[in-house]
Amino acid sequence: MPTRLSQLFVRTLRDDPSDAEVASHRLLVRAGYIRRQAPGVFAWLPLGLRVRRKIEEVIREEMAAIGAQEVLFPALLPREPYERTGRWTAYGDGIFRLQDRRGADYLLAPTHEEAFTLLVKDLYSSYKDLPLSIYQIQDKYRDEARPRAGLLRGREFSMKDAYSFDYTDAGLDASYQAQRDAYERIFTRLGMEYVIVAADNGLMGGARSEEFLHPTPIGEDTYVRSADGYAANVEAYRSASPEPRPIEGQPAALVFDSPGTPTIATLVALLEERHARAEEPWTAADTLKNVVLRLTHLSGETELVIVGLPGDREVDMKRAEVAFAPAAADAATDEDFAKHPGLVKGYIGPWSAEGPVLGEASSTGIRYLVDPRVVDGTAWVTGANEPEKHVLSLVAGRDFVADGIADIAEVREGDPAPDGSGPVELARGMEIGHVFQLGRYFAEILDLTVLDENGKRVTVTMGSYGIGVTRILAAIAEANHDERGLIWPREVAPFDVHVVATGKDPVVFEIAETLTSELEGQGVDVLLDDRPKVSPGVKFGDAELLGVPLVVIVGRTAAEGTVEFWDRRSGERRDLAIAEVPEAIRSAG
Amino acid sequence: MPTRLSQLFVRTLRDDPSDAEVASHRLLVRAGYIRRQAPGVFAWLPLGLRVRRKIEEVIREEMAAIGAQEVLFPALLPREPYERTGRWTAYGDGIFRLQDRRGADYLLAPTHEEAFTLLVKDLYSSYKDLPLSIYQIQDKYRDEARPRAGLLRGREFSMKDAYSFDYTDAGLDASYQAQRDAYERIFTRLGMEYVIVAADNGLMGGARSEEFLHPTPIGEDTYVRSADGYAANVEAYRSASPEPRPIEGQPAALVFDSPGTPTIATLVALLEERHARAEEPWTAADTLKNVVLRLTHLSGETELVIVGLPGDREVDMKRAEVAFAPAAADAATDEDFAKHPGLVKGYIGPWSAEGPVLGEASSTGIRYLVDPRVVDGTAWVTGANEPEKHVLSLVAGRDFVADGIADIAEVREGDPAPDGSGPVELARGMEIGHVFQLGRYFAEILDLTVLDENGKRVTVTMGSYGIGVTRILAAIAEANHDERGLIWPREVAPFDVHVVATGKDPVVFEIAETLTSELEGQGVDVLLDDRPKVSPGVKFGDAELLGVPLVVIVGRTAAEGTVEFWDRRSGERRDLAIAEVPEAIRSAG
Repeated sequence: MPTRLSQLFVRTLRDDPSDAEVASHRLLVRAGYIRRQAPGVFAWLPLGLRVRRKIEEVIREEMAAIGAQEVLFPALLPREPYERTGRWTAYGDGIFRLQDRRGADYLLAPTHEEAFTLLVKDLYSSYKDLPLSIYQIQDKYRDEARPRAGLLRGREFSMKDAYSFDYTDAGLDASYQAQRDAYERIFTRLGMEYVIVAADNGLMGGARSEEFLHPTPIGEDTYVRSADGYAANVEAYRSASPEPRPIEGQPAALVFDSPGTPTIATLVALLEERHARAEEPWTAADTLKNVVLRLTHLSGETELVIVGLPGDREVDMKRAEVAFAPAAADAATDEDFAKHPGLVKGYIGPWSAEGPVLGEASSTGIRYLVDPRVVDGTAWVTGANEPEKHVLSLVAGRDFVADGIADIAEVREGDPAPDGSGPVELARGMEIGHVFQLGRYFAEILDLTVLDENGKRVTVTMGSYGIGVTRILAAIAEANHDERGLIWPREVAPFDVHVVATGKDPVVFEIAETLTSELEGQGVDVLLDDRPKVSPGVKFGDAELLGVPLVVIVGRTAAEGTVEFWDRRSGERRDLAIAEVPEAIRSAG
Repeated sequence: MPTRLSQLFVRTLRDDPSDAEVASHRLLVRAGYIRRQAPGVFAWLPLGLRVRRKIEEVIREEMAAIGAQEVLFPALLPREPYERTGRWTAYGDGIFRLQDRRGADYLLAPTHEEAFTLLVKDLYSSYKDLPLSIYQIQDKYRDEARPRAGLLRGREFSMKDAYSFDYTDAGLDASYQAQRDAYERIFTRLGMEYVIVAADNGLMGGARSEEFLHPTPIGEDTYVRSADGYAANVEAYRSASPEPRPIEGQPAALVFDSPGTPTIATLVALLEERHARAEEPWTAADTLKNVVLRLTHLSGETELVIVGLPGDREVDMKRAEVAFAPAAADAATDEDFAKHPGLVKGYIGPWSAEGPVLGEASSTGIRYLVDPRVVDGTAWVTGANEPEKHVLSLVAGRDFVADGIADIAEVREGDPAPDGSGPVELARGMEIGHVFQLGRYFAEILDLTVLDENGKRVTVTMGSYGIGVTRILAAIAEANHDERGLIWPREVAPFDVHVVATGKDPVVFEIAETLTSELEGQGVDVLLDDRPKVSPGVKFGDAELLGVPLVVIVGRTAAEGTVEFWDRRSGERRDLAIAEVPEAIRSAG
């Protein structure tokens, strides 16, 4: 049966919803695909649900093609397994937690690694059972701080999450590659341009992780790429370390008064004024900025760290988050400073286990980490850990020794790609998929082992592979629209063709009905605009807004056997004999 | 591609899970269809998911056939609309509530009347838009006090809930009838025996409501039926009132000492001992029992009511719940009694606006309601509202006048059907569907109106129609199993046929593969047991447990062109030429 617009549960809106920031949100609401229920929570009208099901179908087919089996977990899960892996705490405010009538703790799962691991542990025990890839298409929940951009960052969203289980690293590599290949096929079928970028494993510490990003200026992710093929999200970018320089022959460190220079800019101005160099002017890059961060560990304990980085760079908190995971990294608070009088705001310098390297006040127990560019022999102007004092020619490896590296400075256009493929440029992308070698992180904590060929108990190694179904739907809308409405790719369009009957002549409507029946009989999904008292202008406007890629207009010339065939994407309209419509639809596919 | 048991993510268990009370739960877990995640919360393995999808498909087809359109709402919904309809409070402990990071209140929806009403209000405004029937298949949540019986009473469960919208009562009747007819077709296709019983509208107070019950001794619902076609659940049963009797000529009321008779049994014994009647012995039916209930109204206010009913009947609290809805009805507490010294436990008698009809202590503000059998002229032995005192010959309509009727006494075998179709008998059933004329309850509160033919604003009238998808799956399993395992009806079986290759001969396995390919090519869904080192006994046991209704055993005689064809339900096994297998499968359908 065709779907009749006279009956379809839909209303198109002329005006943009007031809370819509991006085109996909605007158009999906205006065209009657979705409706907001709460911030980041949407209801799906029939048109939206049709597109969603088509995307799911593409995913299911490609999962089946690599032998992944579908299962389905609940959204409501008990606290205990998430407590064991530390994620109950690590998610912070980012998840929904609730209690049942007995006071037992639950969460609305944001992702299901724990549950899948435990299920496989429940069922399987031998290497012969592996490899295994299982997945679900399921509604997930995240309590986003700023749900925005409609479906692109929602609080309830549908996701395909797959998990692979192997007992060898080579097995994991193969499972990972199979999912990665499947993702490439899925995005190609969905007509989604994508870039595969290296990602940081963060919390899990697995071996390999890549994101599928759809390049778009509205993307929330920044990634870097070189002309010669390097691509990584900024969190995964690794800054290069220069060669160490000779320490001998460098001038001795010199503490100097620097009144009113709590910022790099004021410090550089003072250097130029009072300590001008003959060879070249001072710049921020000559200074060493020391930033205090507070890490909150999974145990709840907090720790301060100081990170020294070239004064011309800012800390990128997203990179810091990943670098310090599973601890949460935040800027130190006034309270933190108050507890450590050695930390003189604006004049902080390098540190050691005993306290500040320079300066009189002492505060121990703070680790000192440096940017990869701070190699032995580099000389810096930096704080002297006393109010209104800085130091010149403080040399790394001579005057201070860091406790470790923290690669958390912002990445800039022109920075070198770590694989030597030249300078990088920055671009914006939207994450549409993520493939991830979890390794043995979850299996170790949750004790998922199998007996191998020799009867030896080995820990299983896992991968995790996610595609946001509702997010992709919005991303497709974002990439396929014009100012007049949506333009769906054929594979996910709610209907194959939109037949519009115009005018008031009953014969025209009869011809439209007959054509529709004929098309449906050939397996073509038709949306028939059979509304009797709606003007052609409104009907055409709705057709443009709804975005079915092919439109057939049945009008005055229909009685003479001719209709108009309208390619919504190209905008081309041409007259066509009715008998040629089925073939035109087929060849347009 | 066939599904191979060597690859399928499943493990069968020999032993029953310790928490399984009913066959469906036991077998669905043992056969690897589901796994428990928390009390009343389950994960679905591939076999379970296949059956679930087939049930959903039957429902979708029948919904489409009556023009109902599919939509999808979130589970996470804001408090506000539920607050307006009173259900935020009325659900008590029965729902999951939670807060987001900003402290806003949400619930996990147990049903979606509010959300559907508001969505239609958002989209529609004219009588021309109606009738409309929309539905979803969606996961719902209820915080059951005692989640039990596996999927039959879970806390997360899948439900098809449909809602109809009309602007006339006749329209609602037609929409209701269409859903009711669709339900009959659905249950027939699913092979589920059902009884349609009148139900009480309870909370909503709509016009008509019926439940589809599957008769089974493990059912949680009790219903009554007469030989001549009356059927109702006990909550909807209406007790008949006898004809009033003449008051004149009845002896005067007589208060008497009744020490140590706080129960009906002790009272009857005392009557026999001290006040024996010539004509017939005293029975509990001669006494009027007065039960104090505490009603909690939606506003949070509480109220005590006394209900007088024949002493041979108990209050049925389920009937009381429905009779007093939307107020919650509970037994009065010691505290309630303490506040009202006129309520003398064990000796309570009729009451009036001024307080107790007999007795000295006074407590006003308590309504006195009576069972429909307490008609004018009936004389009772009942409490005298004083310790150790009862009264004889207290005549309704003469000595006391009730404030109203409360039909909340238990229903018993042999009670008359209210439609005059004879005595009823009691039976147990499991609710598998519910059709419900909500009327204008939600539309009034949420202000869902349309303009009618005359441009007049009229309130929409609604129906609500639910089928528990996961519950039905369990109910089908419950009705289709034997001691060795599940026996699925063809329409919902995870596979059409289970091909078992036995022995070690590679030729046998090749024949099984060839047969499987051939069947799959004809559109038959095959589960192929290709496990190389598993004994025939284990394979047959698994086939019985998994419950695919047709099994083809490929064994030693396969090389000679013969296999065994096994009807799992009848147990019949017969030899068959391989070439005849496709036809045997078709005709077994």
